[in-house]
Amino acid sequence: MEYGFSGKMNGLQANAIREIFKYLSDPEMISFAGGMPNRAALPAEILSELSANIFRSGDIYGILQYGATEGYMPLRESSIAFAARSGITGIGIENTLIISGGQQGIDLTCKIFLDKGDCVLVEDPTYLAVLHILKTHEAKAYGVKADEDGMDIGDLEEKIKRYKPKFIYVVPTFGNPTGKTYSLERRKKILETALKYNVVILEDDPYSHLRFDGESVPSIKSLDKTGSVIYNTSFSKIISPGLRCGVCIADPKIIAKMTLCKQAADVHTSSLSQALSDAFFRGGYLDGHLKSILPVYKNKKILMKDAIKKYMPEDFKSTDPKGGLFIFGEFGNGINTADYFYKALKNKVAYVNGADFFADGSVLNTLRLNFSNSSDEQIDVGMKKLGDIFKGNL
Amino acid sequence: MEYGFSGKMNGLQANAIREIFKYLSDPEMISFAGGMPNRAALPAEILSELSANIFRSGDIYGILQYGATEGYMPLRESSIAFAARSGITGIGIENTLIISGGQQGIDLTCKIFLDKGDCVLVEDPTYLAVLHILKTHEAKAYGVKADEDGMDIGDLEEKIKRYKPKFIYVVPTFGNPTGKTYSLERRKKILETALKYNVVILEDDPYSHLRFDGESVPSIKSLDKTGSVIYNTSFSKIISPGLRCGVCIADPKIIAKMTLCKQAADVHTSSLSQALSDAFFRGGYLDGHLKSILPVYKNKKILMKDAIKKYMPEDFKSTDPKGGLFIFGEFGNGINTADYFYKALKNKVAYVNGADFFADGSVLNTLRLNFSNSSDEQIDVGMKKLGDIFKGNL
Repeated sequence: MEYGFSGKMNGLQANAIREIFKYLSDPEMISFAGGMPNRAALPAEILSELSANIFRSGDIYGILQYGATEGYMPLRESSIAFAARSGITGIGIENTLIISGGQQGIDLTCKIFLDKGDCVLVEDPTYLAVLHILKTHEAKAYGVKADEDGMDIGDLEEKIKRYKPKFIYVVPTFGNPTGKTYSLERRKKILETALKYNVVILEDDPYSHLRFDGESVPSIKSLDKTGSVIYNTSFSKIISPGLRCGVCIADPKIIAKMTLCKQAADVHTSSLSQALSDAFFRGGYLDGHLKSILPVYKNKKILMKDAIKKYMPEDFKSTDPKGGLFIFGEFGNGINTADYFYKALKNKVAYVNGADFFADGSVLNTLRLNFSNSSDEQIDVGMKKLGDIFKGNL
Repeated sequence: MEYGFSGKMNGLQANAIREIFKYLSDPEMISFAGGMPNRAALPAEILSELSANIFRSGDIYGILQYGATEGYMPLRESSIAFAARSGITGIGIENTLIISGGQQGIDLTCKIFLDKGDCVLVEDPTYLAVLHILKTHEAKAYGVKADEDGMDIGDLEEKIKRYKPKFIYVVPTFGNPTGKTYSLERRKKILETALKYNVVILEDDPYSHLRFDGESVPSIKSLDKTGSVIYNTSFSKIISPGLRCGVCIADPKIIAKMTLCKQAADVHTSSLSQALSDAFFRGGYLDGHLKSILPVYKNKKILMKDAIKKYMPEDFKSTDPKGGLFIFGEFGNGINTADYFYKALKNKVAYVNGADFFADGSVLNTLRLNFSNSSDEQIDVGMKKLGDIFKGNL
């Protein structure tokens, strides 16, 4: 049978990271692609105990039954305390929606705001899955220039006027792919500018708890007095990605619309995932868990920076993040990282081409490196291989 | 801030069942609304043991990590054996996509086939969530007439010609809301008719394993030789709705497109839910579990039919299903069940207005009763109340 697919399927391709995922089952592959937590950062033993408790408790029949679309009430409650860690206060249950991972929060925001042809502003470069999600909504992404402190306010304002975006998508803390953290001043200015033009901000914050250096900066949502910011977060990087659980914090009018769309998408998030996440927060495991992960991640970042210095070509510049999972690197002009990608895979080392993170895909001489998922030895071996590949020795 | 929501949010309301859900937290409420399995049908002890095994196994780190969008490979494999129970053979891994509950399979089908304004044919009445999902895609649903054996082929053909639907949605076994099962002859004719006009069929089958009387009828997918049928099923009614897990079986070209959209929606289904479902199937628990549920459901259906006879007005006609979860009832003309709905809630008994299941909402004298979720005593007490309400005694 010949299928007549919808317009939005035209040219829609698997996002680069998901495609690379297929190669990663090779146990010899050293992957600096993906954004996977380290195996040691997955609290299997804690979750095992919490799971046993849940199954022993009287709540188990409620957890195995259909639940409310908005989420498992205890987790919605503990999400309020969780949001307070990012400076978000004065919110209630009605500001929370439990989501099936951070990705769903982005997708639901698109659903409630975007019609075909609508525009969204993103930082250039930005989280590549957002560009993929926007395609499934037949919306357009335009990149805003940025420096070390965050989006360039002049460019942001100009592009708001030019493209009339429905929302601005930012990952202001340990951004994906750059690892960059926006300054407080820049956060305030972005919020001010968005408010001036009545544009919603989608603040995506999966990484801020993964800070291993420096002082934390308040979330944009914590500065929001008018309900213009949707704060989207995920428990993937602090508990487990496999559970597919996170929370959106927003104005109740936005939460209500997102809930209607979530009803249609998956009814509700796995209640077992929700109950486990709730037990993890309530049991007070987060601080101890972060305390055990963060030195590991800090060390891996240092190892990767050292290996970059040791092995990569001299014109290769890279970011030096104080948290998160990624280093973003840039070669001199004339290098297209895509040209080296399959050679790297053949040599059992993977990265993500930087072009995939740019709204128009036009910046070719960059790549993203993940430092969280590899062993210390793999970081050295893999970066040596990459260095040899980019120097033409392999 | 004033929000400029997308066009599809206009007039989008919570679906009736989800709205009623809010009232059900009242422990005194007798609910014949919803489509919830009985508490006794939730295999908590089995899942508890399986969960402990999973956490003890070496696979746990893979399960807590990011997984493939297509699904956890062992579950994709056991889904093939599961589909064989519905007569579906000759399929491979590439025909399977693990979904976050049956609802997501419907939503993904809409995403890959529907543009704004496109049409879908449904049986009148049909599963109300489909009507809600179609609204989130700005698509139109048209109802096809049906008799006891299924969709009326003449009306189906006429409406295919008139509306040029992108797909036909059917729940041919223990349909929601009627509990009806299409005859084999009718299934063949629907497939034939759809093929004649090159229209895809979305066969939704959450209930066929809940047969407590009569002989099983092959799924439409099992008759499909050209890849025109998407078979969508859910583990909610046979394992647990709280886990949000199911499987779609379709042509690999369709699976590939759905996978692209699932990437954007939730990356993948909770791996813990997938691993639990897989362990349940592989452990051979399904048959024993069904053997323990089905007599309970059969008995509840009989109790409800008896109570209908005893308490409901004489002009009330109702279906007599051989499986599934629902009885559909119809009053004489002039009765609008919506007029009695809040009186019923006030008297702590809930049902779903039949109008919500009709594509154009025009049939007012019907209601849906769920018999699976209430205790035997609640069925008698609740139906007596409903009888009194509809007879004007309450």
